Amino acid sequence: MEEKTISTKLIYSGRILSLREDTVLLPTGREGKREIVSHPGAVAVIAETEKGFVLVRQYRKPVEEALWELPAGKLDPGEEPQKTALRELAEETGYKAGKLVPMGMLYLSPGFSDERMYLFAAEELEEGKAHPDGDEHLQVGFFSREELQRLLLEGKIRDAKTVAGLLLYFAKSL
Amino acid sequence: MEEKTISTKLIYSGRILSLREDTVLLPTGREGKREIVSHPGAVAVIAETEKGFVLVRQYRKPVEEALWELPAGKLDPGEEPQKTALRELAEETGYKAGKLVPMGMLYLSPGFSDERMYLFAAEELEEGKAHPDGDEHLQVGFFSREELQRLLLEGKIRDAKTVAGLLLYFAKSL
Repeated sequence: MEEKTISTKLIYSGRILSLREDTVLLPTGREGKREIVSHPGAVAVIAETEKGFVLVRQYRKPVEEALWELPAGKLDPGEEPQKTALRELAEETGYKAGKLVPMGMLYLSPGFSDERMYLFAAEELEEGKAHPDGDEHLQVGFFSREELQRLLLEGKIRDAKTVAGLLLYFAKSL
Repeated sequence: MEEKTISTKLIYSGRILSLREDTVLLPTGREGKREIVSHPGAVAVIAETEKGFVLVRQYRKPVEEALWELPAGKLDPGEEPQKTALRELAEETGYKAGKLVPMGMLYLSPGFSDERMYLFAAEELEEGKAHPDGDEHLQVGFFSREELQRLLLEGKIRDAKTVAGLLLYFAKSL
């Protein structure tokens, strides 16, 4: 099934993304083109605090909408996902986690992007003060499991990592 | 929370994707840059047939791996998602659906991409012959609900639309 790379052309290298066009050899022997976005990878954290599950609401320019999402963030180059998860949870929500339980990895859009999303459940949580970085404008909210299940079923939580992460968490903790 | 566009620069316009850099006015009054991938949008279909849930396995060049996924495909320009869903299900698996039930819409990676994923549950299914297009090399497989739940919990299904779509379907049909 593999598609071998015949040639690759870098089109753009930005602050976060890069874009390339690969010419590949298809299993049939024909050639094909693939447009591929490279992304550093990211983490998302499910944190069930004393006040409920903590989510953040953030304006997302690509979709021109503010979305409720799991606390999340991009990996720094070479960074271990666990470290990113601890940092982003603390920055976005103020919560410090004593322990992170890996909840798997998702490919968000494997048809055109190499982005890997590492999911973690945070435990031994300690409340603190959020300190989002300059470009982030976040609202922090707390939700019970029942509220989240209702919002998920009503289609009011629409971010894929958040839908998948919460439902996986609920399935594992049944 | 909104980020107004000050200027936009088109960097690439490809067969499937386009890429632009937007300069935006942040709520703080500062300027920011956003790297944005435009995607035509896509559909994915949950089809529970007499043989089980039908999934397709496909090599995904961006992640260099063959993944089990829901039957899925991109919208043609201006196309209604329902139409795409019927077409892609038939092309990839051979099944014709008499009815499609909308299961919601997900943003797959709203931090950098505008891709919308429309989910449908297919009903009144009739078996037929698959006819994937030239660039697609698909393996079709059938899975029981119990097998899927095990594969999801073991992290062996890793495509986000498939994880989210199946778990939403299971939650709705509890």
